[in-house]
Amino acid sequence: GVITGQQFLDRLRKSPPNLFIDGQQVQDPTTHPATKNMAASLAGLYDMQFDPATRDQVTYEEGGHRYGMAFMVPRTKEDLRRIGESHRVRANYGLGFLGRAPDYMNTNLMAAGMGAEYFAQCQPEGDHKVDFAGNMRRYYEFVRDNDLCLTHALTNPQVNRAKMASEMPDPYIALGIVEENDQGVVLRGARMMATLPIADELLVFPSTVLKENADKSRYAMGFAVPCNAPGLSFQCREPIDVGRPTEDHPLASRFDEQDAFVIFDDVLIPWERVFLLYDVNLANKAYAGTDAVLHMAYQVVNLKIAKTEAFLGTAQSIVNAIGSGGFQHVQSKIAEIIIMLEIMKALEVAAVDGATLNRYGVMTPARGPLDAARNYYPGVYARLPELLQYLGASGIIMMPSKADREGPLGPQIDKFLQAGNATAEERLKLFRLAWDMSMSAFGGRQSLYEKFFFGDPVRMHSALYEVYDSSEYVGRIKAFLNRKDGAQ
Amino acid sequence: GVITGQQFLDRLRKSPPNLFIDGQQVQDPTTHPATKNMAASLAGLYDMQFDPATRDQVTYEEGGHRYGMAFMVPRTKEDLRRIGESHRVRANYGLGFLGRAPDYMNTNLMAAGMGAEYFAQCQPEGDHKVDFAGNMRRYYEFVRDNDLCLTHALTNPQVNRAKMASEMPDPYIALGIVEENDQGVVLRGARMMATLPIADELLVFPSTVLKENADKSRYAMGFAVPCNAPGLSFQCREPIDVGRPTEDHPLASRFDEQDAFVIFDDVLIPWERVFLLYDVNLANKAYAGTDAVLHMAYQVVNLKIAKTEAFLGTAQSIVNAIGSGGFQHVQSKIAEIIIMLEIMKALEVAAVDGATLNRYGVMTPARGPLDAARNYYPGVYARLPELLQYLGASGIIMMPSKADREGPLGPQIDKFLQAGNATAEERLKLFRLAWDMSMSAFGGRQSLYEKFFFGDPVRMHSALYEVYDSSEYVGRIKAFLNRKDGAQ
Amino acid sequence: GVITGQQFLDRLRKSPPNLFIDGQQVQDPTTHPATKNMAASLAGLYDMQFDPATRDQVTYEEGGHRYGMAFMVPRTKEDLRRIGESHRVRANYGLGFLGRAPDYMNTNLMAAGMGAEYFAQCQPEGDHKVDFAGNMRRYYEFVRDNDLCLTHALTNPQVNRAKMASEMPDPYIALGIVEENDQGVVLRGARMMATLPIADELLVFPSTVLKENADKSRYAMGFAVPCNAPGLSFQCREPIDVGRPTEDHPLASRFDEQDAFVIFDDVLIPWERVFLLYDVNLANKAYAGTDAVLHMAYQVVNLKIAKTEAFLGTAQSIVNAIGSGGFQHVQSKIAEIIIMLEIMKALEVAAVDGATLNRYGVMTPARGPLDAARNYYPGVYARLPELLQYLGASGIIMMPSKADREGPLGPQIDKFLQAGNATAEERLKLFRLAWDMSMSAFGGRQSLYEKFFFGDPVRMHSALYEVYDSSEYVGRIKAFLNRKDGAQ
Amino acid sequence: GVITGQQFLDRLRKSPPNLFIDGQQVQDPTTHPATKNMAASLAGLYDMQFDPATRDQVTYEEGGHRYGMAFMVPRTKEDLRRIGESHRVRANYGLGFLGRAPDYMNTNLMAAGMGAEYFAQCQPEGDHKVDFAGNMRRYYEFVRDNDLCLTHALTNPQVNRAKMASEMPDPYIALGIVEENDQGVVLRGARMMATLPIADELLVFPSTVLKENADKSRYAMGFAVPCNAPGLSFQCREPIDVGRPTEDHPLASRFDEQDAFVIFDDVLIPWERVFLLYDVNLANKAYAGTDAVLHMAYQVVNLKIAKTEAFLGTAQSIVNAIGSGGFQHVQSKIAEIIIMLEIMKALEVAAVDGATLNRYGVMTPARGPLDAARNYYPGVYARLPELLQYLGASGIIMMPSKADREGPLGPQIDKFLQAGNATAEERLKLFRLAWDMSMSAFGGRQSLYEKFFFGDPVRMHSALYEVYDSSEYVGRIKAFLNRKDGAQ
Repeated sequence: GVITGQQFLDRLRKSPPNLFIDGQQVQDPTTHPATKNMAASLAGLYDMQFDPATRDQVTYEEGGHRYGMAFMVPRTKEDLRRIGESHRVRANYGLGFLGRAPDYMNTNLMAAGMGAEYFAQCQPEGDHKVDFAGNMRRYYEFVRDNDLCLTHALTNPQVNRAKMASEMPDPYIALGIVEENDQGVVLRGARMMATLPIADELLVFPSTVLKENADKSRYAMGFAVPCNAPGLSFQCREPIDVGRPTEDHPLASRFDEQDAFVIFDDVLIPWERVFLLYDVNLANKAYAGTDAVLHMAYQVVNLKIAKTEAFLGTAQSIVNAIGSGGFQHVQSKIAEIIIMLEIMKALEVAAVDGATLNRYGVMTPARGPLDAARNYYPGVYARLPELLQYLGASGIIMMPSKADREGPLGPQIDKFLQAGNATAEERLKLFRLAWDMSMSAFGGRQSLYEKFFFGDPVRMHSALYEVYDSSEYVGRIKAFLNRKDGAQ
Repeated sequence: GVITGQQFLDRLRKSPPNLFIDGQQVQDPTTHPATKNMAASLAGLYDMQFDPATRDQVTYEEGGHRYGMAFMVPRTKEDLRRIGESHRVRANYGLGFLGRAPDYMNTNLMAAGMGAEYFAQCQPEGDHKVDFAGNMRRYYEFVRDNDLCLTHALTNPQVNRAKMASEMPDPYIALGIVEENDQGVVLRGARMMATLPIADELLVFPSTVLKENADKSRYAMGFAVPCNAPGLSFQCREPIDVGRPTEDHPLASRFDEQDAFVIFDDVLIPWERVFLLYDVNLANKAYAGTDAVLHMAYQVVNLKIAKTEAFLGTAQSIVNAIGSGGFQHVQSKIAEIIIMLEIMKALEVAAVDGATLNRYGVMTPARGPLDAARNYYPGVYARLPELLQYLGASGIIMMPSKADREGPLGPQIDKFLQAGNATAEERLKLFRLAWDMSMSAFGGRQSLYEKFFFGDPVRMHSALYEVYDSSEYVGRIKAFLNRKDGAQ
Repeated sequence: GVITGQQFLDRLRKSPPNLFIDGQQVQDPTTHPATKNMAASLAGLYDMQFDPATRDQVTYEEGGHRYGMAFMVPRTKEDLRRIGESHRVRANYGLGFLGRAPDYMNTNLMAAGMGAEYFAQCQPEGDHKVDFAGNMRRYYEFVRDNDLCLTHALTNPQVNRAKMASEMPDPYIALGIVEENDQGVVLRGARMMATLPIADELLVFPSTVLKENADKSRYAMGFAVPCNAPGLSFQCREPIDVGRPTEDHPLASRFDEQDAFVIFDDVLIPWERVFLLYDVNLANKAYAGTDAVLHMAYQVVNLKIAKTEAFLGTAQSIVNAIGSGGFQHVQSKIAEIIIMLEIMKALEVAAVDGATLNRYGVMTPARGPLDAARNYYPGVYARLPELLQYLGASGIIMMPSKADREGPLGPQIDKFLQAGNATAEERLKLFRLAWDMSMSAFGGRQSLYEKFFFGDPVRMHSALYEVYDSSEYVGRIKAFLNRKDGAQ
Repeated sequence: GVITGQQFLDRLRKSPPNLFIDGQQVQDPTTHPATKNMAASLAGLYDMQFDPATRDQVTYEEGGHRYGMAFMVPRTKEDLRRIGESHRVRANYGLGFLGRAPDYMNTNLMAAGMGAEYFAQCQPEGDHKVDFAGNMRRYYEFVRDNDLCLTHALTNPQVNRAKMASEMPDPYIALGIVEENDQGVVLRGARMMATLPIADELLVFPSTVLKENADKSRYAMGFAVPCNAPGLSFQCREPIDVGRPTEDHPLASRFDEQDAFVIFDDVLIPWERVFLLYDVNLANKAYAGTDAVLHMAYQVVNLKIAKTEAFLGTAQSIVNAIGSGGFQHVQSKIAEIIIMLEIMKALEVAAVDGATLNRYGVMTPARGPLDAARNYYPGVYARLPELLQYLGASGIIMMPSKADREGPLGPQIDKFLQAGNATAEERLKLFRLAWDMSMSAFGGRQSLYEKFFFGDPVRMHSALYEVYDSSEYVGRIKAFLNRKDGAQ
């Protein structure tokens, strides 16, 4: 069942992931300066499961137990709506800027668990009988029951884009199977990018699109492993949380979820955590075959709604503070955000409206609106921070720090940096948020993250073209061209 | 109840609107070369009400009578969905390029008729007792029962944008009230732009936003009048239908709906057709006060879905014909259209999903998604014809006519202008359609029409800003800035 | 030397090109309704060579003769500037909307004539000794001396984009060599698109990029032939000039330059008009090898400057007429045009500033600015007609014709369609021009033409990438990354 | 004459500006962690004046003395070209990311000194005779002779955008004159934003556009003052240079030029440093009246060329490293940068080509190209960092630090993060630069800076509209509409 923030922190302290930051291993992520705030934010998310104001929105009851809502199996459209609301409520905790809150992987796992039969198609080779489907199902229950926090790592290192994993200078640059033994399989190589490595377990869902020529490949696999497994290392990027107070860096000081590349130095994965092996075709299609991709996309759409609302709220707050709402070009800029928001909301509604039960009995949101959303949003997101810059202008740069406000020039700052409708302190806190959303290293990482969240935009467009059925419209044109009607 | 196309044509021939084209009055719009094809297309729309394939989609029964679906008063979301489907089925008749099919004004009138009480607020002046509300309600029933085709005219001539109607060089450039008498009111001046003047009646719904300084004005009014009323003239623009065969101009030869400016040379409006007089405030708010604007916007959203589907169908047909679907940049261009289409569809779904009963008991689609749609679409529409140009390239220019194909070089045309997957004839018909959608005078008018359909885009943005309530998001930002959580 | 418009028309009447329009051959292009206005406009261009106001700008003297300026061989930057000014002066005649005025081909020919040695690299095969270089040089002199008007045709029919000419269903869909004989070579097949087929001669400059696998190909060739040669036919597209008066269609009634595909039904090209045969590599590089492409691009840049100036003049005239210049968003739209214009002007200046003498002693404008211009302009051109639409709004649709103004409603039109600063007639003529620039079939063709003028924009970008040398900037980055300076 | 970097540092240490950072005064900017690197970079710029490789490019000789090139008075176009080259050479030192290198203010001062007569129009009031023109001229010479580094501060605090300085809650929020005395004038209030406050002197050039209703105002003024003057304080924003090594933050560790707001707590400006007082009209027009704005814009155009070259070099280096140059969409993205670069270069060339001697005998670059450049670049700049993100993808996030490379996982980093054509170290240094250009807090500030460098883009557009003369093009349209030519 659900756990509290304190329980999460205790567990993390007891079994810390093998994180490396700035050349040193992180002994305790709950106290290390680069990760403690993020750990505390995750704890806050866990605590929402007990807070009377949010408990019923973010958890559900089943069989006498209470679980996180993202684990719930939707059977009706109403279930989907509840899950969607849960995603938004949790997203609001971080104004939509916490990209990989645990519900993302949890909803992946729910779909995988329900669609576990997919993995039964994979035939183990050699002497080891493996119940892939059962492993997948039981892992879902295990994570749900223990309310674990998961990270994942989808892509192989990009040493050379034009080559396959098997053509690399070293066969174990890409993560590959070294051997099987009685305990499990041994893996070597690296994977990118584990966002939120401050987690309990790493799930490598068999989703990486491999371009190998053979049906069987040592690079095809799916498994889970604790983040503190021997031989496993998470090399983190430079921290964005640099220890500034929350007033100065309102987002970076709370939500630096980190990104890591994951090194497997002959890591043993026990058989009960292996979900797929060697089968390239099944690995490439696992996301689609279990519909996990649609549930994850549904979580993302709700997350982006929350994020867009945060931009709208911030933009309007700036306009209110400096009294610029009467200018037509200012109105137009706010209107742009409103339109984006209503579009994202409508795509969420349409995804539920068109939902259908899949072959595993899971109410699955419609693909069309979700595909539109995950192609639309990466293309327009950059406009949101840009609009904040235009609305805030030089005010988003000229921001003394909390220490400045408390220092010798404090009274002068109060006088000269007040806004028409806000004290200097209020205004500076607000503009600091706008800066962290749009111009700080935190905001910069977000702008990249949004562009590539679901994959390279060029390939995303091609994939949409491939999957979309426009034959009805092609047929309509043909009929029109051949129609004999009154005209002429 | 519903009438056939032939009945419509007969009525039009018997009571032709006072149209003027190229310096001459149109005696019979059903035979005049510039209007006969459009009249025939309207007849085709009327015939859909009897065609077994479409009858149940575009009509409904009530009290033993059958009426056009756009007259139906929606009481449930399911009703709205039916109406929406009806709009799309009718729109497909002209691939979405017939902007002012009669259902547009009919749905306006339905809302006005249901909200007739709004007009009871208008107090007649002088000696003439007028039942404005009753007039409005009865006019709705009259149009519905006779299945009339209406046009309207919303704006005053734009002699000088910066001035009010009352400041013009002549007080009767803008349409104004000259006098009241026992029969009715006498009007003088002009109104722009009556699209689809090939109609039975002209409805001047009191929606023009007046900027007069006084509460009462001779320019505030609402009324209806037959298009062949004495003193009334419709000055049409140059025809786009120039007599080319349907194979050459597949859209212009069928759907030249015309645009006219309407001259009132002391036209008498009988009292029973007057809905509002003098009251500036009520006139300015009539669209919103009756929710007519939302029902019209709902029709438009469905129309634009059909139009976008036609672009997708045409684009994909071109790609199929010339075999260019394997190029990544081609795939990306098709994907762009798909995304637009899914967005418009989702906004339609969301408008119904959020619908509520208004004070008059009418199920009214939600404003947010409709406002987003009517701001979004004008901004992106231009990309659709542009994409056709990129996909068709020089093939959209180098198009011999039907006469060429039947002339001495016909065999050469067949040989040299075939496509990989289409004969020259098929290809040329398809590319002709693409041309009429994107590059002909017909396509050019559409590009302007889409930009200004609901008003000047700059003012549309400002209006959206004014009406949208973002206080929840502003409040969320304030709460976030003041939140004390684990971080720091 | 130079000829008058009348001489041009007489010659055209005497030796008319083999044009086919709407299924019939054009007997006399100077009187045929679809071509007479264009012929007259060409005559007007020829007359500029005698008009005292323009003579010295558009002609030059050499050896006692006066020739069109586009034939002049530039030896200095000042020469280039004179030629550029000549291009602009001639372009202004059609407000930049006459894409293929004769100076375009003339400047091509000048470069080819000067670089004739390039063609000496091509070795004739078989028994026929051909002086390719001499042919090229003499053809330049012939055209210059007779002041001929030329068209050209660069691309093979696009039956299937993915295939080479030799893989087509018929080996003579693409234009190919059938045989050589004592008189010359016999050609069969088709070529697209001959813009301005109302011409004296057709020059097929060996510039089509062939993707044949062999070094020698029947599809590699360069030659010239009179437009009335036996076996040659020009199949024209549907005319845009539909006989409306100049007041109604100010551009289409004057500058419908036509586009044709050219059919070669065993056409004999005499040896003295053959410039290259069989050599794929030389054919592919002839534009670059003679620098003809740079002189043509220079003509185009000057043409586009004139066109952009016409948009600016029209846009500002509209703003003046309706008095909208005080609105900030209107100012911003005009500013957009100004920026485009100044950029194009600067690219022209920079092309001259960086000009160098090529190996043939011709002062050749710099490639960088010209490449930028021909990639920049196609990408932004669409904004120009769009801006006219936004500035003119419904006024660009609601335009009664000349016949309307002279008909019974004339006085009403004068009253209601006047503008604040213009009579109805002035306003309508101006708005008609804006319409023909941005929304008519004429304007629609222009929008396609600009997108593809120099080739498919996707391939243009790739070509720019391939040819551009950025090694200096790459080296600077490397040096910077390795620099040890004061910092740190 | 010119000084060395060491001399600059010594002077700075001896007379440090009154900087406040994070609540504390900076005692020695050459050693303070937030400013020492920037000071060192400035020293590097000074040293270029002695480095044999650059000396002759960045200095000139006059009267036996050697001065920085930005002080040189251009008398010919060749002089302008030399100055332009000097700007670029100096800009390359910081890859164009050092926005306010001293040459910016120096060229301002050169124009002001030459146009000093402008200030003679300002009549002193009261008892104090002031030689404004002489002060201006002598200040130019003083700065030139001592090779000073200047900052400036143009705008008043934006408490409320809709109000004039005199309507603020406190009359001395905006910088205003408190009193005159025998020594000079006493000023109180604040000014934004002094970029590069690590400077010797503050020049407040009388350029702030005041909207006061009176001809005379206490807010109109021009003066200079040492940065360590009593009563003067520079409140800096939060430092972007956070002490990371150059390998990790290649730009932020070197070029954090800082932005400050400047507080005047009754600062005395001696009479000999006052250039203008009270005269609103003269203050508003000083930039234009001295042509200083054109010389500054010319410096900026050259700076932006260097910056764009740096983006091109970095983008191409990334493509080279990961071997992605064969993809068409990658080629297209590089082509976009090339086009921007060639446009900026052409605008620079055109500004010189059209230069004229102004009334003060200074060769002044042409306004049109410069106005285009400063409106064009802010609109397209955002695309440059965006392109780097698209080209670098997740590689720009997943960047271990220098400490990581030197830590226990170093060998793994070397293996897994190598690129096809670069070692891990080379690749990481390159991607770090791309990150600092496009995504770090340094890059974020640059994106805002570029948008507002020359002012609010909306007002910039309006100003361009106001100043541009398009009457020639308007006249051409009128003539065309009235032209009777052959057509018709």
